Amino acid sequence: MPERIVVALGGNALGNTPEQQRELVRGTAVSLADLVEKGFELVIGHGNGPQVGMINLAMEYSSQKGGGTPFMPFPECGAMTQGYIGYHLQQALQNELRRRGIVREVATVVTEVVVDQSDPGFAHPTKPVGSFYTREEAENIAAEKGFTFVEDAGRGYRRVVPSPIPQRIVELGVVQQLIASGDVVITVGGGGIPVVETEEGLCGVPAVIDKDRASALLAREIRADRLIILTAVDRVCVNYGKPNQRELAEMTLDDCERFIAEGQFAPGSMLPKVESCLDFVRACPGSTALITSLARAAEALEGKTGTVIRAE
Amino acid sequence: MPERIVVALGGNALGNTPEQQRELVRGTAVSLADLVEKGFELVIGHGNGPQVGMINLAMEYSSQKGGGTPFMPFPECGAMTQGYIGYHLQQALQNELRRRGIVREVATVVTEVVVDQSDPGFAHPTKPVGSFYTREEAENIAAEKGFTFVEDAGRGYRRVVPSPIPQRIVELGVVQQLIASGDVVITVGGGGIPVVETEEGLCGVPAVIDKDRASALLAREIRADRLIILTAVDRVCVNYGKPNQRELAEMTLDDCERFIAEGQFAPGSMLPKVESCLDFVRACPGSTALITSLARAAEALEGKTGTVIRAE
Repeated sequence: MPERIVVALGGNALGNTPEQQRELVRGTAVSLADLVEKGFELVIGHGNGPQVGMINLAMEYSSQKGGGTPFMPFPECGAMTQGYIGYHLQQALQNELRRRGIVREVATVVTEVVVDQSDPGFAHPTKPVGSFYTREEAENIAAEKGFTFVEDAGRGYRRVVPSPIPQRIVELGVVQQLIASGDVVITVGGGGIPVVETEEGLCGVPAVIDKDRASALLAREIRADRLIILTAVDRVCVNYGKPNQRELAEMTLDDCERFIAEGQFAPGSMLPKVESCLDFVRACPGSTALITSLARAAEALEGKTGTVIRAE
Repeated sequence: MPERIVVALGGNALGNTPEQQRELVRGTAVSLADLVEKGFELVIGHGNGPQVGMINLAMEYSSQKGGGTPFMPFPECGAMTQGYIGYHLQQALQNELRRRGIVREVATVVTEVVVDQSDPGFAHPTKPVGSFYTREEAENIAAEKGFTFVEDAGRGYRRVVPSPIPQRIVELGVVQQLIASGDVVITVGGGGIPVVETEEGLCGVPAVIDKDRASALLAREIRADRLIILTAVDRVCVNYGKPNQRELAEMTLDDCERFIAEGQFAPGSMLPKVESCLDFVRACPGSTALITSLARAAEALEGKTGTVIRAE
């Protein structure tokens, strides 16, 4: 049986313009094709923070400042990012696989993810989306539009939206069929289009589902052997940014819980990544999770860097 | 063996705003679910004229008039519409099928379609997209970006893009896998994201592929039994708009060719629909095509309205 891997790619690693994204996915595709070439079954989740921010901003600007286009709700903007990012990712992978003579279908599935209407996340927006602003800019936009902003890891101020916990992947059956057919599957883009169950059926809601949590849910549901969360750093740290900062080569589930209780990981940043790994590894006996950077993913798989999360 | 149907939905039938689209797809889903309930295998292609126009316009307006978002190329706008329209369509179908107690997966596949770089369409761009500009603005943008502009019915200058003939559906294998799994599949949205084969691999090009031609190509490739092209009229007419206008209940391939030679069908409107049906029925012995309106699709399937195209 081939080892089944879910890779969660950060939206920040995809750049801020279509040209950047096309260039960056070319490199990403090389790393991902390495995994395919090594014989892994590969399912890809990805973020969409900067991209949904950009599309939302453009649609909003055009509708409010004379462009004559209609207001576009947030879940629809998320659906657009699944097409936009999925297209670039699938094409880069198709090209890279063909270059290597590997015959493999690549499929992007437009994916909805059910969240709970009573999720406490709706009362406490935490998920950063869109551009970085100075404090003054952020205050002006907040006053004008009623958005909530937070300071983000020293890089500036970003809008935050509710980030409810993903409960169910609507197109899970489709993803499973495509995995069974041997395809590389791109799904839960941006964490999935957030929907709630109503009496009328599924209905989109303005929120952003954390892509790491959605990828972890996916990994659990498809009984993946490994969840790889790619981020901006090579390894998870404790005492981050302090003189006694320490990189972790591995964490047990007990370590994860202790560090989380100590407040070692920033909410909206490293915390959901570690929690996602914890949830996945706990639910799937024998599985491991890995947090590392895209650039060093191949080395991390060989144990040279990255932080491995294992049961014990 | 269940009968396999490809339905091509018009982008104009999806409205001009997200609210209209959500409302309209609810009705569309009822008609489509009827087909599923009757036991047909269903694959759905759809247009995106108004939607890609809206997204392209908003992205262009925001990038050029101070919104601070980057320029968005045309194929990427098309990819966005596949996410946007696919999301609404799949959700409406999921809800309608569940309401009827039908357990069936619905899958939207982000789909690229290969066109030929030497297609004569590239030398003669005809499809208007985006904003109206003054002559001076148009000349400046043309000089900067290499776009082609035409004067449009006295309303100003608009960019035009080519409409090349679809040659190959990149994700055809994925679509076939999903059909074999019993899913309802949504694909070739907007005619597919237009790409060309280059030495580097697939590469997006600014163009619009006719969704009826792409749906006919799809129907041929998956050996569909029937292609249904849904449009604004119940039946194809000859002598359209003249005193001797006549509705057609059916056409043989010979009829189609004769009427086309007589110039009975408007280019960019009924002509590509009839040509698409002709191509499909000729390529697939025993198949039929049907042109009718969405509202009367169910009646048309019972032979009460619509124009059937058959071999003889």
